Amino acid sequence: MKQVLKTGLMAAIVMAGFTSGATVAQEAALNEKHAQAATNFRQSLYKLVYSNMGPLGGMAKGKIPFDQDVIATNAMRLEQLADMMSDYVKVDTRKFDVDTEAKDEIWENWSDFESKIDSLKTAAANLQAVAATGDESKYAKAIGQVGASCKSCHDDYKVD
Amino acid sequence: MKQVLKTGLMAAIVMAGFTSGATVAQEAALNEKHAQAATNFRQSLYKLVYSNMGPLGGMAKGKIPFDQDVIATNAMRLEQLADMMSDYVKVDTRKFDVDTEAKDEIWENWSDFESKIDSLKTAAANLQAVAATGDESKYAKAIGQVGASCKSCHDDYKVD
Repeated sequence: MKQVLKTGLMAAIVMAGFTSGATVAQEAALNEKHAQAATNFRQSLYKLVYSNMGPLGGMAKGKIPFDQDVIATNAMRLEQLADMMSDYVKVDTRKFDVDTEAKDEIWENWSDFESKIDSLKTAAANLQAVAATGDESKYAKAIGQVGASCKSCHDDYKVD
Repeated sequence: MKQVLKTGLMAAIVMAGFTSGATVAQEAALNEKHAQAATNFRQSLYKLVYSNMGPLGGMAKGKIPFDQDVIATNAMRLEQLADMMSDYVKVDTRKFDVDTEAKDEIWENWSDFESKIDSLKTAAANLQAVAATGDESKYAKAIGQVGASCKSCHDDYKVD
């Protein structure tokens, strides 16, 4: 326990503001260390998003077979991760030298960015509903809607 | 959409086996690339765990004030992340040269490792229940139980 608490202090400073809720306020990184930690956590979140989206994309493209359980699970996880997303991106790291693909526009257009997160949540929830029907003919379209929400945000807010 | 699908293929191979459920079977990494991707995703998951545990540890230690909303949110996220944990650790990377703090014992004692994940889930669920009561006098103990479940697993399965 002690070690966990000790090593958790940096994260405590970075992330103490986690709260659930519709709209999350952005906040400026306090210093370079804070900016780097926030960037590191942010990138971890997107890696998990990617790891869930990958198989779904593979299925929609016909590279791997549709799997109802995997679709349902990954769609649920995408919704959970989307629900964390504002908290993991709210720390504005623009003023610091961090290695990131996050464009400055994220924090310039924060409410639009959050609306794109909402689109991902909606698409992920819909994909769960579609998976629950077991109607394989509907899977590709519902996966495509999740992918489209990813792309819409990447187009504006991620460095290519 | 196309780009998402294309870049998702590697992840598809790595993670196509995601399924919800009590017990997840471990599986050997297929090659070095697979092992490295699995390690990368695994570490991302634990970074998110850490980012949620940090503030809780800070509160339990009295370094930052108790915040009922943050406790409730982070405990929920810890439960969600614990629920993903078997899937993110099941790829046995022992045979490959990956930069990891995961001990070989994870895959040697997989059922014990999974039982420790269950302990984290239970402790995180309990912390949500305690946060819901609003009884601040109970927060430190319930946070301590989550931290103890982290430590119990780190002691056996994480390189110091």
